Parts: sequence; structure tokens; C-alpha cells
Amino acid sequence: MDAVSVIRTKRDRGRLSDAQIDWIVDAYTRGEVADEQMSALAMAIFLNGMDRAEIARWTAAMIASGERMDFSALPRVTADKHSTGGVGDKITLPLAPLVAACGAAVPQLSGRGLSHTGGTLDKLESIPGWRADLSGAQLMRTLEDVGAVICAAGPGLAPADKKLYALRDVTSTVDCIPLIASSIMSKKIAEGTGSLVLDVKFGTGAFMRELDDARELARTMVGLGADHGLRTVALLTDMNTPLGLTAGNALEVRESVEVLAGGGPADVVELTLALAREMLDAAGLTDADPAKALADGSAMDVWNRMIRAQGGDPSAALPVAREQHVVTASASGVLTRLDALGVGVAAWRLGAGRARKEDAVQMGAGVEMHAKPGDAVRAGEPLLTLHTDTPEKFAYALESLEGAFDVSPEGTPFEAPALIRERIGS
Amino acid sequence: MDAVSVIRTKRDRGRLSDAQIDWIVDAYTRGEVADEQMSALAMAIFLNGMDRAEIARWTAAMIASGERMDFSALPRVTADKHSTGGVGDKITLPLAPLVAACGAAVPQLSGRGLSHTGGTLDKLESIPGWRADLSGAQLMRTLEDVGAVICAAGPGLAPADKKLYALRDVTSTVDCIPLIASSIMSKKIAEGTGSLVLDVKFGTGAFMRELDDARELARTMVGLGADHGLRTVALLTDMNTPLGLTAGNALEVRESVEVLAGGGPADVVELTLALAREMLDAAGLTDADPAKALADGSAMDVWNRMIRAQGGDPSAALPVAREQHVVTASASGVLTRLDALGVGVAAWRLGAGRARKEDAVQMGAGVEMHAKPGDAVRAGEPLLTLHTDTPEKFAYALESLEGAFDVSPEGTPFEAPALIRERIGS
Repeated sequence: MDAVSVIRTKRDRGRLSDAQIDWIVDAYTRGEVADEQMSALAMAIFLNGMDRAEIARWTAAMIASGERMDFSALPRVTADKHSTGGVGDKITLPLAPLVAACGAAVPQLSGRGLSHTGGTLDKLESIPGWRADLSGAQLMRTLEDVGAVICAAGPGLAPADKKLYALRDVTSTVDCIPLIASSIMSKKIAEGTGSLVLDVKFGTGAFMRELDDARELARTMVGLGADHGLRTVALLTDMNTPLGLTAGNALEVRESVEVLAGGGPADVVELTLALAREMLDAAGLTDADPAKALADGSAMDVWNRMIRAQGGDPSAALPVAREQHVVTASASGVLTRLDALGVGVAAWRLGAGRARKEDAVQMGAGVEMHAKPGDAVRAGEPLLTLHTDTPEKFAYALESLEGAFDVSPEGTPFEAPALIRERIGS
Repeated sequence: MDAVSVIRTKRDRGRLSDAQIDWIVDAYTRGEVADEQMSALAMAIFLNGMDRAEIARWTAAMIASGERMDFSALPRVTADKHSTGGVGDKITLPLAPLVAACGAAVPQLSGRGLSHTGGTLDKLESIPGWRADLSGAQLMRTLEDVGAVICAAGPGLAPADKKLYALRDVTSTVDCIPLIASSIMSKKIAEGTGSLVLDVKFGTGAFMRELDDARELARTMVGLGADHGLRTVALLTDMNTPLGLTAGNALEVRESVEVLAGGGPADVVELTLALAREMLDAAGLTDADPAKALADGSAMDVWNRMIRAQGGDPSAALPVAREQHVVTASASGVLTRLDALGVGVAAWRLGAGRARKEDAVQMGAGVEMHAKPGDAVRAGEPLLTLHTDTPEKFAYALESLEGAFDVSPEGTPFEAPALIRERIGS
């Protein structure tokens, strides 16, 4: 077996055999296949695809590249959620403690942000003292004691995926269904969760622009879960508009706490509750009432304990950016469009995200929205507030907001599209 | 400008802009763009192609990555030849001294062999004392004194191509017309020859299996030459059958000397003379008579001086492999097929070629043919002799010869296909 012949097979539109997939994923993990060979193969897969059997085998090979976790010793059933990423997508923050408050154990092994979509760990790191890295023993103890944990995945889980993901990021081979599906599902299956709910986003702020592509990705992942005996459900949700009224690390933590306090933007509450119900159903906890757990403070209680268990102070003041710039409406009317990509890129340019893995993020940077599509706006009043520690970036961020929103004349009829578009079960 | 967006453009079937091409070739040469990024781009180019304007710009950028040579101070006009590579293709060896004997200056900057096609430098290194590496000054002096030189290209000539070629070799992106054409032509244009004749091969033993692909490659290269004011002509020649009766380093030198002595296999003589006439025409030396220069010993005289100028002893005995294995005909009849790929791979497996750049080649190893298609063969008589220093490789080499030749009943009509199929001028 050699890398050149494996690459050639896919380059020439052939099927990769099980033996080819097993060999190249293992040899790449061990460093025997070079990065430049794997990136050529990734591009060939991007352009020529993989069929369902190839994706399943690729996923299995990535799982086999590392260790597997086991939550079966826990007294509670585990429920996990994964979002394919979007702008203002802070749902994991209120969701994990909410589902734990309803009786499931929620191990959320999360990542950092790259490009315009934020990372859950970056957001939580804006809480003074909070740290993402836990040992396996700490993770288990927190799950037992608190019921929910959001932390970084250890290096032993699907190491082939870790190497490949970093490579895809610099070689324009990220937004490819076979590679996305196998990357997500290999980690989730290796993690050993008992059930999984996927939030698969479509729209300008998502990796998948089109609903059809998101549906194909969702079906692929639900199928992979079923192949491995993992009960998996996917919701297809709209990411043409940012979620909530904030995009940026500390800004999103603040909004998440509002939701846990029983308030917060309607769309964030709607999606948090819908995902919570799916997770609780999948975990067999069909009698749980997540709306009640938000209203009665029990979800907030789990949040506070979860943050403290990882060294954070949930009552500490969150970081605020040094400079603000307000974008006002130039005319009165109805906001009919607020583009997720434009807002996401603006937040990223303001310092909320990173261009390279080794970059630091600004905890206070981001975009605060004062209106969402359907809301009335008045000329001269604030539409967006931009936050950054590096005000020289305002002009660059504002460029990405040009044409990113529409204000239509008062009385223009506007019907908000459904946030949750479809549900895909196995 | 960044590598990710350049890769994405080609991945998404877009045209690379001049600025994108200039930037990425330069940044890759300087090490700012990583190998894994260039290999992803090479695969995207392989699968999505480049148009003529992109190929021209890519070629220009590779030329600009290094120095250019200048032969204008020479009293003679320069003529150069390039072959796309085949099995038993030793034509450069008799051709360079022959064309020099007819009055042109012939600077042949050559390469080493990879995979089943041999390298001109490897062949010449079987001559005791001969060395491939010359300084620029030594190259010019040899061209002035002798008229012909075959040596390694210096590191300063199209360094982008050197890096990219090594990368393509390990990532299955070699046999791609835009990348082959720009690789060959960037080196030849940077070398500064006054005219160029291309031997573009098609068939089982060539990179291009099909005549149509070879024609497209030839047209692309002839067009690139014209764009840069380099008079370029291509012959499309058949590489379904090995050239001559030998494949292997010292074996091919021996056969080349036979041609220079006025003998040698008819196909080698035919192609050597045809390419010599094209080179002399392109150089404006239309009155020269290469057949006479072979017959009267003047080409042999240049050969002897050329080999001596690079430290070689043209009268020394050539290396002979330690072991031989004879393949005999199992039936009498007519040899109607002798597959170039089978013979090339056998020679390579016997030790005549290398699997990796750092491998050494065996000087005496290779395949000697006792019959060519159209020849009568008799049961029990030798068809091929295999030569190697590592006899444990005989079985492996013989595998590649299974089904590589056909002996048909006596009297079977056989018409040899034309060796030189088409001529493509600008």
C-alpha cells in the first residue's frame, strides 16, 4: 500500500477500498503519510466525493486512530449535541446546564472558533478563571457532580481527525460533506455518548449555504450514527440571520446567562428548548420539562456549578471591549434582512475570532444587534454596536456590513422564516 | 492574497487571475505557501484544469522564480530537444553530439529517472568518470569547445518547478497537461535556448497513453514556446513499444554508441535523424546532413570529446550486471507485440530505476531485447535477457513481463505502426 496509489484511485473517480482507507488514515496518524499527500487526497475527495460506505469506513478508521471514552459507569444517561456552527450560536452554553437540570448527563467536548463562526471554548474563556482543559478524571467527576461539562476534547480522541481538520483549514477543503460528516461523527462516536442531537445549519452564516446540502449532511451523519448504534437526530435550522442579539465571546456569555435567567432573545430560547427536548427524548427522559427548568432557576443553578467546577467565577464581571462604534439606521421602517455572514465577518474582524490557530481572541470584541428582522427601526437610532479593543479595525469591520441589512418602508409586510425547518431522525 | 482563497478559486472551477498565479508561485518558492497547500492546488488543477492563458501565466511565473541563462554570446545558434520520457529512450545521447557535429550548439539540461522511465543523467553516469554537475562557466566552455553538453540543470533555473515537481511526484499529480507543459517549458525558456524540438510520446510506456492527450500536450507546449518567442516544434511518437533493443543505463549507452558508430537499431536511428533534422531546421542550419555526420564519424568524434569534457572515459568498459536471466520464446512465430510499460517496469524492478529520489540505480541493470515486433522468433530461443546485481528481483521483474508480449503463428501479417505519427509546428 502506498499513498500515491490511494490518491490516484480517488483522483480517477474510483472507490477507496476498506483496506486503502484503513491504511491511509492510520499511516497519516503515525506520520508515515505526509501532510502534502493527505491534502491532495482531501482535495480529490472534495471534488470527486465518497459514497456512504466509504464515509462509514473513513469514520470508523478515524475512531480507531485513538482512544474511546466510556460513560457507562455514570448513573445518568448521556446526551450530547453538536452544531455545525453559525454566527451568534451560543446555544451550547444555556443548553448543556438546562438538559443536565432535567436529568441527563451532558458531556460537551467542544472546539475553538476558526473563520467567522465562534468557538464555544473561546466564549467560555471570557469568564474570569474558567479553563477548558480537563483530565479524563476531572471530566468524569464534573459530570457526576454537576451533570454537565463543556471542555476541550483530549488529544487522544480521534487524533487522525485533529490532524486532518487542521490541514483542511489551510487547504480549502473544509466545506465538503464526506469530510465534515466523518470529522464530527468520529469524535462523537469515540466520545461514547448515549445519544446525539445535531443542529445542522444552512444559510449565509453556515458552512452549507443551501438547505439541500445541509439536509444531505444531516442524513449522512444520522446514518453514520445509526451504523455505530448511536441514536442520532438532526434539526435543520436557519442561519441566514444571526442567532440572538450578540456575536462575540463575552457578549454571547452575557446573553446566554439572560436565557438561563428566564429571559433572552426569543430565537435563542426557541432553539435552546427545541434542542433540549430532542436531547431529553433521545435520552429517554420524555417526561422532563425544560421550559420549567429555565423558569424555576434550576438550569441556572447547574450553570453556576458547572462554571465553578472549571475554575470560573459565574458572578464576576465579564470583559468589556475598550471601544464602541454605533451604526444607526439611515431611514425609519422595518428591518427585513440582517445577514449572518456580514455580522459574523464583522465580529471576526473586530477581534472576536482568529485567522490562525495560534492567534488570541479579544474577549470583549463583537457585534451587538439592537434589532432583528421584523423589528421596526427609526432613522438615527442604533442598529448595531461594534465592540473592539483595536479601534483601527472599525473601518475593516464596517466593510463587511455594507449591504448586510435592509430597512424597508414602514408597513412593508414581513414574515419571519421558520428557524427550525426540518427534523431528520434515523 | 492568501493560499486558501487561491486554492478555493480553482477548487470551485474558477480561473486563476494573473495576480493569484504570480503570488502563489512566488510565495511557494519562498516557502511562505506550504507544501500541503500547493499539493491541494495541484490536485484542484489536475481535476479542474487551467486554460491557455492560465498555463501561460503559470509558466511565466515559474520562469520568474529563478535566473535565466543566456547563450547569445556563443558563436553558434543553440538548439535544444526535450522528450516527455519513455522506455529505452536514449535518443538524447546520440542526438546531442550529432546535432553539434552539424553546426549547432546543443545545451541539454537533463534530469534523472523516476518511475519506469529512465533518466538521461543516470545513463551517462554509467560511463566511468563522467559527472553530471557543471558550473555555469564549465557549461559555457564545453558548449564553445565541443558544441554539445548534457548536464544537470543548476538549482537556480525555475526553482518553483523543482519544488513543485518533487511534490507532484508523491501526490499523484504528475500526468496533468497544464502542469507538465508549464514544467517543461519553464525550464526550457529559462535556459534560453534559441529553438526547441519536443518529442512528445504516447502509448503504454509514456505519461500520456492516448495520442489525443499527447497532441493536446504538444500543442500547449508549442503555443507556450511561441508566446515567449521560442521557436518550438513537436513530434508525436509511438511509445507502445520500447525504443531500440535495450532499457537500462549502461545497456542504453552501449546502444547509443552503436548508433554513433553508424549502426544500431533502425527505430533509434530513424528517430535520432528525424529529431536532428528538426533541430537543425529550427536552428536555420537547413543544409546540414545528419545522416552523413553519423556515417563519417564526426558525430562520434563530438561524443568522445563531450564525454571527456565531463571527466568520462569514452573508451572504458561499461559496467555489466552480475546476473542474467534469459526469457525464451515458448513457440515459434512472429513477435506482434512487446509492451513498453511491461519492459520499463521490469527494467525498473531489476534496479535500473529508483523508487525514491534518494535511491541509487544499478548501472548494469535492465532489459535487453532480442526481437522487436515484426521479427520472427523460434521456440526456445532468447527473447529477452534480464540483467541485475540483485538476482532476488528476477521473479518480481518477470511478473511485469507476464502478458507483455505476443508471439503469433508464423505467417501472421504484421504491419508496424509508424514511429513518428505527427508533427506539430507553431
